[in-house]
Amino acid sequence: MRIAELSRRSGVPVPTIKYYLRENLLPPGEFTSPNQAQYDERHLQRLRLVRALLDLGRLPIAAIKELLAELDRPSPDLHHALGRSLMLACLSKDPVDESEDPEADRMVAELIERRGWQVDEGAPARRRVAEVIAAFTRLGVTEPIDLIDEYAEAVDLIANADLEVVRRSTGPDTIIYNAVVGTVLGDALLAGLRRLAQESASAKMFGATGTD
Amino acid sequence: MRIAELSRRSGVPVPTIKYYLRENLLPPGEFTSPNQAQYDERHLQRLRLVRALLDLGRLPIAAIKELLAELDRPSPDLHHALGRSLMLACLSKDPVDESEDPEADRMVAELIERRGWQVDEGAPARRRVAEVIAAFTRLGVTEPIDLIDEYAEAVDLIANADLEVVRRSTGPDTIIYNAVVGTVLGDALLAGLRRLAQESASAKMFGATGTD
Repeated sequence: MRIAELSRRSGVPVPTIKYYLRENLLPPGEFTSPNQAQYDERHLQRLRLVRALLDLGRLPIAAIKELLAELDRPSPDLHHALGRSLMLACLSKDPVDESEDPEADRMVAELIERRGWQVDEGAPARRRVAEVIAAFTRLGVTEPIDLIDEYAEAVDLIANADLEVVRRSTGPDTIIYNAVVGTVLGDALLAGLRRLAQESASAKMFGATGTD
Repeated sequence: MRIAELSRRSGVPVPTIKYYLRENLLPPGEFTSPNQAQYDERHLQRLRLVRALLDLGRLPIAAIKELLAELDRPSPDLHHALGRSLMLACLSKDPVDESEDPEADRMVAELIERRGWQVDEGAPARRRVAEVIAAFTRLGVTEPIDLIDEYAEAVDLIANADLEVVRRSTGPDTIIYNAVVGTVLGDALLAGLRRLAQESASAKMFGATGTD
């Protein structure tokens, strides 16, 4: 298909597609003349992935570029390839510009031990969780920190469901692709479901009728 | 304190603080001379909140402005004030530029019915969840959709913990503030914990040693 049809089918404007091509977020089409290229279903699929990571995952362009490179690399060692992909998806949402907080680091380490989680010492998610705990403390909202074990129990259910998806996938390429999409979009899904469950719990707790 | 000290204590550069003042993200200080203003602990606290919503919540400036206005408004009706705040926190992360997907809408409605959730027909989170489901479908990753009931069960645990925090708070102002911070930062906390739990589940499933 020509770029106009790619635009029509994806809903992404032509100038935006050209920008993605320049930024290597999208592989070049096959040139049929110096000014005309043909695109196929793989371009459409890649375009949808870029939009989902941008719009729903809210990842920066640079992070998406690295993630796509990871997706395109042949990966013999599944656990490490998965780890690299998830690290990218994590790091990119986590600008590290806060000061260190040893107390928060200690709380994360203790939580990991209590749960029996098998997590690398250098896992960026440790740092991410510690930063959120530190932010709660700075903002004087400490109750969620007290509830971290209840949160952790809930995410164990989620992570087991996530890995079940991975286990059912066939072939390392599909596994990595599904893990990236499932992790980044999964955060958005969980955030949305959490709002629904919160609204319901609030309606029940504060006695609203739910009819307004 | 002067703006230099506010900058030092918050870690936010002076030009950035001036930008927040111009954008009304931060109330003006008390002017002691035409070129000099004094700030207090409330400014420091507000600055920390803005940074957390920006860096960890990744909310756009416009959304933060609306949320802060909601926080500053006296709120006699708790359920609705909570609803408005959470709606803002939700909408702002959810640019609606996808096409409608009636199938996804139907799946969300059925999920809400299965869970017995009491959720307004017009709740933006319905739309958000439907959009994520539609994106999964477009990307050909349908397994997470099959697991939505397991996700929903996990978020019920989370939402009950969230509302427990709200119940323990005293005074409507504190309740709204805690709900906003807990919801926006809570998403970041859950995303981080999910990565930890995933890494652990992956290590156990794919037999990595966890020592590298």
